[in-house]
Amino acid sequence: MALVNEQFLKLPGSYLFSDIAKKVAAFKESHPDKDLIRLGIGDVTQPLAPACIAAMNKAVNEMADKTTFRGYGPEQGYDFLTKAIVENDYLPRGITLSTDEVFVSDGAKSDTGNIGDILHADNRVGLTDPVYPVYIDSNVMGGRAGELQSDGKWSRIVYIPCTGENRFVPQLPTERVDMLYLCYPNNPTGTTLSKAELKKWVDYALANDTLILYDAAYEAYIQEADVPHSIYEIEGAKQCAIEFRSFSKTAGFTGVRCGYTVVPKEVSGKTRQGERVSLNALWNRRQTTKFNGASYITQRAAEAIYTPDGKTQIRRTIDYYMSNARVMKEGLEACGLTVFGGVNAPYLWVQTPDKTPSWKFFEQMLYEANVVGTPGVGFGPSGEGYIRLTAFGEQENCVEAMRRLRNWLY
Amino acid sequence: MALVNEQFLKLPGSYLFSDIAKKVAAFKESHPDKDLIRLGIGDVTQPLAPACIAAMNKAVNEMADKTTFRGYGPEQGYDFLTKAIVENDYLPRGITLSTDEVFVSDGAKSDTGNIGDILHADNRVGLTDPVYPVYIDSNVMGGRAGELQSDGKWSRIVYIPCTGENRFVPQLPTERVDMLYLCYPNNPTGTTLSKAELKKWVDYALANDTLILYDAAYEAYIQEADVPHSIYEIEGAKQCAIEFRSFSKTAGFTGVRCGYTVVPKEVSGKTRQGERVSLNALWNRRQTTKFNGASYITQRAAEAIYTPDGKTQIRRTIDYYMSNARVMKEGLEACGLTVFGGVNAPYLWVQTPDKTPSWKFFEQMLYEANVVGTPGVGFGPSGEGYIRLTAFGEQENCVEAMRRLRNWLY
Repeated sequence: MALVNEQFLKLPGSYLFSDIAKKVAAFKESHPDKDLIRLGIGDVTQPLAPACIAAMNKAVNEMADKTTFRGYGPEQGYDFLTKAIVENDYLPRGITLSTDEVFVSDGAKSDTGNIGDILHADNRVGLTDPVYPVYIDSNVMGGRAGELQSDGKWSRIVYIPCTGENRFVPQLPTERVDMLYLCYPNNPTGTTLSKAELKKWVDYALANDTLILYDAAYEAYIQEADVPHSIYEIEGAKQCAIEFRSFSKTAGFTGVRCGYTVVPKEVSGKTRQGERVSLNALWNRRQTTKFNGASYITQRAAEAIYTPDGKTQIRRTIDYYMSNARVMKEGLEACGLTVFGGVNAPYLWVQTPDKTPSWKFFEQMLYEANVVGTPGVGFGPSGEGYIRLTAFGEQENCVEAMRRLRNWLY
Repeated sequence: MALVNEQFLKLPGSYLFSDIAKKVAAFKESHPDKDLIRLGIGDVTQPLAPACIAAMNKAVNEMADKTTFRGYGPEQGYDFLTKAIVENDYLPRGITLSTDEVFVSDGAKSDTGNIGDILHADNRVGLTDPVYPVYIDSNVMGGRAGELQSDGKWSRIVYIPCTGENRFVPQLPTERVDMLYLCYPNNPTGTTLSKAELKKWVDYALANDTLILYDAAYEAYIQEADVPHSIYEIEGAKQCAIEFRSFSKTAGFTGVRCGYTVVPKEVSGKTRQGERVSLNALWNRRQTTKFNGASYITQRAAEAIYTPDGKTQIRRTIDYYMSNARVMKEGLEACGLTVFGGVNAPYLWVQTPDKTPSWKFFEQMLYEANVVGTPGVGFGPSGEGYIRLTAFGEQENCVEAMRRLRNWLY
C-alpha cells in the first residue's frame, strides 16, 4: 500500500484565510446592503508598471516567431535577469554576488516552502512569533515541527516571541537552533531590525553554526536609513544565510509569479560526520530536478523593473501604498490605538483595545465598522491581542476605513 | 549545526544533458567549421499558436489597468482553465472529473518532482527502465531509492525493464511496489501501451493497493485508436492513479510553464494504522502551502488552447513534429536500424548497430555524421545499446540528418 506522509495529518484542517473568508461570507449574507472595506489580505491592487507591460508584450510577441521563440530556459533563471539582480539589488549596497548565487523562481512562497528539501528532518527550527504560516506548515510537512500542543505551539519548534513588550525586537533564543527563519521588514508585524540588531543574529548564527533563512520580500518598502535591505549588508552573513526575495510586493507580481533566492557559495550545512556541504550546490540540484525555470515572459517583466523607467514606476506604486500606510497609522493612533509597523512596511500591527482577543476584535470590527482585518493570533500565539491591517488598498478606502473606525471606537 | 539532507549526496555529480553539452562543446572546439544537427534535447522549436499569443497579449494588457488587474489567483488554478481542462481533455473520453480534482501548476516536472512530498519515505518505488530521470532523482532526494549500485541501479527501486526483447511492454513486477511510475506515450522510448496492457497495470494497482503516478505529458501525440489518452479510460483507475499532464509539448509551452495534475477524490493512501487518507486533500494542502499558482498570463494562454482556433493551431504544430518523426523513422529504417517509437510520440528509440554501447555510438554519430542524439543508457541501465532522437527540430534538419546517417552507415 502507498503510505502517506503522516506529518500532513498533524496540520489543522482549516486555514486562517479560509476561516476569515467564511466569516466574511456569513456577514455578507446577513448584511447584503453593507459595503465592506477589506484590509485583511496581503494582495496588491495597483496595475503593473508600464515598463513591465511593454516588456511582456514584447516577450509574448517573440514567442510568436520561430527565430525569437524561447523554449526551456535555465532552471536557475536567465542571465539577463540574474545579472540585473546582482547589479541593482546588491552591488549598490556593497554586496558582491556572482550570478550563479542567484536562483530565479516562481515566487518566494515556493522557495521558502521548498528550501526544506535540502535540509535534514532532524534540524531544530527557530522562528519569530507571530510568523508567516508557510515557515511552520512546510516544516510540519518536513517532519521538523513535532506535535501541535494545546497552547498553539509545535513541540519541536523554538518560538521567539515578538510583542509590544519587547518592541518587536526578538531576543536570542536560550535553546540553540539549527535553522532560523527571519523575515524583515516583518510579515505580519511590519516591524524592522536595525543593522546592529540584525548583526546580533548573524553573530549568533556564526557562533552556533545556525543557518538563517532570511525573507526580505518587503525590502522595497524600507524608508529609513538604518534598516538593512539585505542580510548580506552584515559582515559574515554570506557564511550563514540564504536570502529570499520576491517581486510580488516590489512590483505587483502576485499574479505574474517571480521571485529569487540567493544562496552564496560560502554558506554550508553539515553531514552527520561533520563534513561541510555547499548549500548552493544542493539547491541547484533541487531546482534542476524539481523545477523548470520561471516563465520567460515573466522574467522579461522582472528585468524591466531594473530599467530607469521601471524603477521610477514601481517606486511610485510603493509610495502610493506607503502613503496609505501613513494615513492608516495616523488614523489608528487618532483612535487611541497602539500601532506598530507601517513605517518601513505595508503592514500595520494594531494592538486591540483592552487586550481584546484577536478573533473577537476581528468580528466586532467586521460587524460594527464593516472593516476586514486579519486576526493576529492567526499568525501564532504571540499575535494574540493584535490585528493586522494592510496598506495595499485604494487610498479612498483607507481613508474611509479610518473614518469608520474612529466613529466606531469613539 | 544545520544538517543537510544527506540523500542529495548520493546523486551522481553530473547530469546526462550537461555531459552531452560538454562533449558537444569539445567537438565544436576541435571542428569549428562543422555544422551540427541537434536531435538530442526534447525541447520544441516552433512558435506558439496565434490563439495563445492573442490571449497572452490580452492578459498582459489587463494587468495594466487596475479594474482588470489580477493579483493572487487560486493556488489550484483559475476556474476558467480547470473547467476547460475537464470539458475538453476528459469529458469527450467519457471521464467525469470535477474541477477541484485538477491542479494547475507551472509544469509536470515540478509536479512529478514534488508529489513525493505527500508520500512516505518508506514506500517501495517501481518504475519502468529506461525512464525520465526526475522520477529517480526526486525519490533519491526523498529517501526512497536506497543506494546506487555498481550496475547503475538504486538498491530500493524496483526496475521494470523495457527493451526490444519485450517489445517495450513491461511485465508486472514480481516484487510488490507501493508507488509506480508509468509514462505513456513513453519518454524516452516513444512507445505506448494498448488499453488492454494498461488495464493489467490498473488491475495490479487495485489488487496490491499500489499508487500509480501516470505521466501523460505526450498524450497529444497519440495517433492510433487503441492507445489510451488518459489512465482514467481504464475502469478503476480513479481509485489508484494520479495523472500528470503538461502543455509543454502539447502547445510549445516549455518556456511559458504550465501543466496540471489530476488527483481524483477517490484515490487514497494509507497511514501505518491502516486509515485511508485522501490524496486530493493532501496535494491541495501541499500546493496551497508551497506554491502560489501559475502565472495568470500563462493560464490565459493555456485556456486559449481549448478554443476552436487554438485546437486547430496546436494540432498543426503537432502534425509537423509527427511528420518529422515519420521522416526520421523511415530514414533510420532505410539505414538498416531497428527503431521503436515515433508513431504516437515525438521520440525515436534507436537500437545501435551490433549492440554498440550508447555512449560510443553517440560519439561516433557526433564525430562522423555530425548529428547529436541522447545516449539511451543515460535514461537507465535498460537503455544501454540505444540512442534517443527527438522529432522537435526543423523538417529540413531532420531530412538532412537522415541523409548524413545514411552516408555514414553505408
